[in-house]
Amino acid sequence: MIELKASQGAGADAPMQEVVQAAVIGATGYAGCELLTLLVRHPSASVTCLMSSGKDGKKAFPIEDSHPKLRGRFSVLCEPLNVEQVLVAGPDVVFLATPHETSHQIVPQLLEGGLRVVDLSAAFRLKDQSAYAKWYEFEHHFGEVLAEAVYGIPELDAPRIASARLVANPGCYPTSVILALAPLLNAGWVNISAGIVADSKSGATGAGRKPTERLHFPEVNENLRAYGLFRHRHWPEMLQELDLSPGDLIFTPHLLPITRGILTTIYLRLSSLRVLSEIEGLYRSFYAAAPLVRIYPAGTLPEILGVANTQYADIGFALDESTGRLILVSAIDNLGKGAAGQAVQNMNVMFGLPQQTGLL
Amino acid sequence: MIELKASQGAGADAPMQEVVQAAVIGATGYAGCELLTLLVRHPSASVTCLMSSGKDGKKAFPIEDSHPKLRGRFSVLCEPLNVEQVLVAGPDVVFLATPHETSHQIVPQLLEGGLRVVDLSAAFRLKDQSAYAKWYEFEHHFGEVLAEAVYGIPELDAPRIASARLVANPGCYPTSVILALAPLLNAGWVNISAGIVADSKSGATGAGRKPTERLHFPEVNENLRAYGLFRHRHWPEMLQELDLSPGDLIFTPHLLPITRGILTTIYLRLSSLRVLSEIEGLYRSFYAAAPLVRIYPAGTLPEILGVANTQYADIGFALDESTGRLILVSAIDNLGKGAAGQAVQNMNVMFGLPQQTGLL
Amino acid sequence: MIELKASQGAGADAPMQEVVQAAVIGATGYAGCELLTLLVRHPSASVTCLMSSGKDGKKAFPIEDSHPKLRGRFSVLCEPLNVEQVLVAGPDVVFLATPHETSHQIVPQLLEGGLRVVDLSAAFRLKDQSAYAKWYEFEHHFGEVLAEAVYGIPELDAPRIASARLVANPGCYPTSVILALAPLLNAGWVNISAGIVADSKSGATGAGRKPTERLHFPEVNENLRAYGLFRHRHWPEMLQELDLSPGDLIFTPHLLPITRGILTTIYLRLSSLRVLSEIEGLYRSFYAAAPLVRIYPAGTLPEILGVANTQYADIGFALDESTGRLILVSAIDNLGKGAAGQAVQNMNVMFGLPQQTGLL
Amino acid sequence: MIELKASQGAGADAPMQEVVQAAVIGATGYAGCELLTLLVRHPSASVTCLMSSGKDGKKAFPIEDSHPKLRGRFSVLCEPLNVEQVLVAGPDVVFLATPHETSHQIVPQLLEGGLRVVDLSAAFRLKDQSAYAKWYEFEHHFGEVLAEAVYGIPELDAPRIASARLVANPGCYPTSVILALAPLLNAGWVNISAGIVADSKSGATGAGRKPTERLHFPEVNENLRAYGLFRHRHWPEMLQELDLSPGDLIFTPHLLPITRGILTTIYLRLSSLRVLSEIEGLYRSFYAAAPLVRIYPAGTLPEILGVANTQYADIGFALDESTGRLILVSAIDNLGKGAAGQAVQNMNVMFGLPQQTGLL
Repeated sequence: MIELKASQGAGADAPMQEVVQAAVIGATGYAGCELLTLLVRHPSASVTCLMSSGKDGKKAFPIEDSHPKLRGRFSVLCEPLNVEQVLVAGPDVVFLATPHETSHQIVPQLLEGGLRVVDLSAAFRLKDQSAYAKWYEFEHHFGEVLAEAVYGIPELDAPRIASARLVANPGCYPTSVILALAPLLNAGWVNISAGIVADSKSGATGAGRKPTERLHFPEVNENLRAYGLFRHRHWPEMLQELDLSPGDLIFTPHLLPITRGILTTIYLRLSSLRVLSEIEGLYRSFYAAAPLVRIYPAGTLPEILGVANTQYADIGFALDESTGRLILVSAIDNLGKGAAGQAVQNMNVMFGLPQQTGLL
Repeated sequence: MIELKASQGAGADAPMQEVVQAAVIGATGYAGCELLTLLVRHPSASVTCLMSSGKDGKKAFPIEDSHPKLRGRFSVLCEPLNVEQVLVAGPDVVFLATPHETSHQIVPQLLEGGLRVVDLSAAFRLKDQSAYAKWYEFEHHFGEVLAEAVYGIPELDAPRIASARLVANPGCYPTSVILALAPLLNAGWVNISAGIVADSKSGATGAGRKPTERLHFPEVNENLRAYGLFRHRHWPEMLQELDLSPGDLIFTPHLLPITRGILTTIYLRLSSLRVLSEIEGLYRSFYAAAPLVRIYPAGTLPEILGVANTQYADIGFALDESTGRLILVSAIDNLGKGAAGQAVQNMNVMFGLPQQTGLL
Repeated sequence: MIELKASQGAGADAPMQEVVQAAVIGATGYAGCELLTLLVRHPSASVTCLMSSGKDGKKAFPIEDSHPKLRGRFSVLCEPLNVEQVLVAGPDVVFLATPHETSHQIVPQLLEGGLRVVDLSAAFRLKDQSAYAKWYEFEHHFGEVLAEAVYGIPELDAPRIASARLVANPGCYPTSVILALAPLLNAGWVNISAGIVADSKSGATGAGRKPTERLHFPEVNENLRAYGLFRHRHWPEMLQELDLSPGDLIFTPHLLPITRGILTTIYLRLSSLRVLSEIEGLYRSFYAAAPLVRIYPAGTLPEILGVANTQYADIGFALDESTGRLILVSAIDNLGKGAAGQAVQNMNVMFGLPQQTGLL
Repeated sequence: MIELKASQGAGADAPMQEVVQAAVIGATGYAGCELLTLLVRHPSASVTCLMSSGKDGKKAFPIEDSHPKLRGRFSVLCEPLNVEQVLVAGPDVVFLATPHETSHQIVPQLLEGGLRVVDLSAAFRLKDQSAYAKWYEFEHHFGEVLAEAVYGIPELDAPRIASARLVANPGCYPTSVILALAPLLNAGWVNISAGIVADSKSGATGAGRKPTERLHFPEVNENLRAYGLFRHRHWPEMLQELDLSPGDLIFTPHLLPITRGILTTIYLRLSSLRVLSEIEGLYRSFYAAAPLVRIYPAGTLPEILGVANTQYADIGFALDESTGRLILVSAIDNLGKGAAGQAVQNMNVMFGLPQQTGLL
């Protein structure tokens, strides 16, 4: 449909091609559904293989059995996970929306088989191999793969993503925090020692599709709860990518009674007094080439309704100019820019397509 | 259990006493929580024993571990189910908010031990012993207990409830349907052969607290689904109590994205043309002595907000006077009049208290 | 508006062209937002004019002031309603998501100016000119335009839509009822005199964006209410399109505590006994060429989650084969197939594009 | 029902009486409904006068027209506001759930007439008379009444409340913040100059019942938005009661898509390192005599579900012992302890009843 030209998007190494053939493994979860929804209307991608990592049985099934919304969209059945079969099929890219342990196990095989991978799990996000035992309760065995993996926020690292074999797609909370803080920290405008507080609120799909009492409808509805104080798994990911020490950043997630969306409210002190227009200017400049980041003008703030069912990250500000206390508000769809949308954005960069292709 | 005075409430047989000592078994579910909430502020009842039928372990625990709302309300711990212990304690009444199979098993023991029981499960609701295999997937072994059990809608059967040893507390859907249809059917005003349709919509607590994919927050939120068409378990209960044949009544439940409340919309044809004021008059007369049933005047209709967190059943009407097509709308809180509220109302009747004691 | 090639889509009269230039009037409402969301990613359409019919002031404003979700998507401002300006701009099609009275007033001017119109209001849906005073509280002055207007359900009337100057885009409830009943009624399989009951449940966006107490958040949330019994405005629209008499069909809408989606449960008697596979076969055959209608196989039923944020109409069945009592369940997104999606589908048909273009 | 003895609750000045006669003015709002719900089952209070300050007309009406939940509970009609009539009736206490401007106007008249008042508006909360123009957009004319008014958090000021003629019932957000911070600030354990951040999330009833676009169902549902950054009206109330300077405390409210409940997450630094048990001990000691404050043990945190439809304030903690960073989580029902529940608690104290009477 679109005429293909030399890469507009990412680094010079990025190859170019007409239609990217994609395998989606872990298709029965929420991120899987979102990936399929995006890929099925992507003008330059095609889903050629669907697999489920679940233990729901050994037989292939139509994906609409899992996602009624997708009824009639895929003729190919969803197969049980089978790495050999993926290798034989030889897609251009494999999306993994699988449990951390599953990704940990099969990514090395896929890479060895010559495939490129976007992994939506956390299995290759943390550079510190020893951290997995602490944060994810499994021993990580693939230090070299960890070293090779590129943490995939295209706005911050497009050239490396373009040539990556393995992109570790970021967590939803980290995406909302990192995109909001990166310009300020990069500019050195934050009084880091005064401490940064990120108070995040997320919809329930961020916690996955496995039924638990914690996510039982009447336990979430008409409720709000904080959890994981001082010890949420996504915290080390933020510290790593923002180059902060544990004492610099407090991160508190809350579970919202909504299906999708994250709003993060960040509190910090500027290292010197500035006016709000400077802050806005910094962000507009930093994200000038980022088609999926939207900066809000003074007096307006992002909200979840503005990003739900979109692939955008929205960022806004309020500043007490007399004291230098700054509040950042960022909003994303946890399944969009916080998961599947960013994964497709990474794919776009990897294959030389404009970042936003199929995402607007 | 102390002084007995003359009955104030229900049938003449009903004894009366100052404080009813109650055991609540199945305290960790939603109906259990509601029972405790009602009983703790009931002026003439006291909870003396809490038990859980779950397999959560063998140790006693504070009930707030299960229901944060009850923190600080009970000094007594919640014990693992132990029938012997209940018999020894000898409460005046035992509330069972247990699975059907558990109730089926322990009710005979409790009765034999001389205790009176209000069973919120379905284990003793259907008079047809053979029906349990079909509708509840277990063989029922206690035909005599079934025969003795009184189906507990106090507005329809207070005298028998007053002297009952075992009250089978009705299902939530049946309560909303039976209370709405009883006056009309009793008066012979319904063209039964034209068929009655009851289209019910219920909040998610009606399905219990066990986590399942079907009740996972993102599967219920922003959704509505019909289920159990032509074959929901509560249908035979309605037929039995309304003395209808299967062909007379269609019942369709739907799962609403709310925590509590049922709205039932019932469609029928009158056996002869009437004006709306006659219908309203019939209902006001039928429920004149019923403190927990509210009849809505012409032009207004019950809604869930009017009954949630109350123990009322609200009933309203719309009539096409020219054709005799009548629409009934009834609303209850599925945990209130549809479960725990009705159970306490039954207790009140059993112990000679005014029906509404502790329920307004 | 450029090159014309041979029609690919609908009727033979339908012209074809590369990019359809569209004006959207009433852009600040929910249907307006949805229209813009669909058109901005439609491969063969372009929004060239945005107008608001509101009284919010006289100045043009960026559409994201009204719809945060659309931030960054439109460079053109939203102008105050000005028919002259639309006529001068000369778009290929004008979408009206305006109040009934506004549409009633401006449609004749637009047609006279040579423009084609898809009107999402009810102003030209009812053929009976005198009905407007009763159902919509205004006198209708344009009988000839009414006569010319084509009621726009593409699955049922594509050829006339293809050549229409004015398409009256159906109401959301009628779409859910008409699509579900049309095949059966068309086949003569319904015992009409036994009566048909359509019990519909709709999300709150169906009631528009104007704040009222009835739609105030705490009045809708955790609630369900029936309204408009025997007298909802959408009922005559259903009767007209299904060729039924008032006594044949009862329609009861309910307001759900969700943002978008309609589920309709329809109860009827077959005119003779049939098996479920016959019903399913009839529907599959009737909608064989309809890309936006999905028929559910026996044992599965549509639910709102399957259609929300899609442009599909989903239809399923449950049949009591022994009595011929049939329950139809249909689901649509009230803003999708129930409003904006259907409007774009009508545009597609009018301009010779495949019906589903830009809608999957 | 309860035997009345000499005051158990508040100060020695508190009178004692059998049944407190209460007038509720502003009965049609959400706080009004909650007041009526609490008072109607209060064992020592009776509602003798209902009035609406609205402009809904001049006639008396049954309160169930405004609150379906209260159908059948009040025989007395709701009258249009008429101060003379209140003075003549001479209730023991007048609850005002009226707009700020209305309270401002009528409180002096009520006091002059010899009545005692609990005002749920903000009209007499701020001691600084000149602050009203800035924060509430009206000039305050009654400096002496302001000076006399007692800010009504019974846990902090029972003796003065006991003898007050006018209690200024606190705002919902301030209640959640002040109760959480008071013990720590009182003990001098907070490093105030490091700054305190209170990130609050509230259900929609906190914003009142007047329909606005901001509170229109589809604008709140599935959304979360921050508002009033650095300039919410409740902020000066917190500063005043906690004796803090503007630079000491940042307060950010967010609008949750739920009906009732506030969760506040507070971030601060301790003035010296402590262990969590010390913090918990401090709170248990501080609130030892407070029947409506519940302190959560280490490892558990309050959530909205635990307080909704209750009159409790729940407080919990997480501490990074190595850095002295403390997170407080407090939860209340904004209509309960955040409004009507606290108002009734104040009434209890004013009339020598145990604080929790009618509130458990």
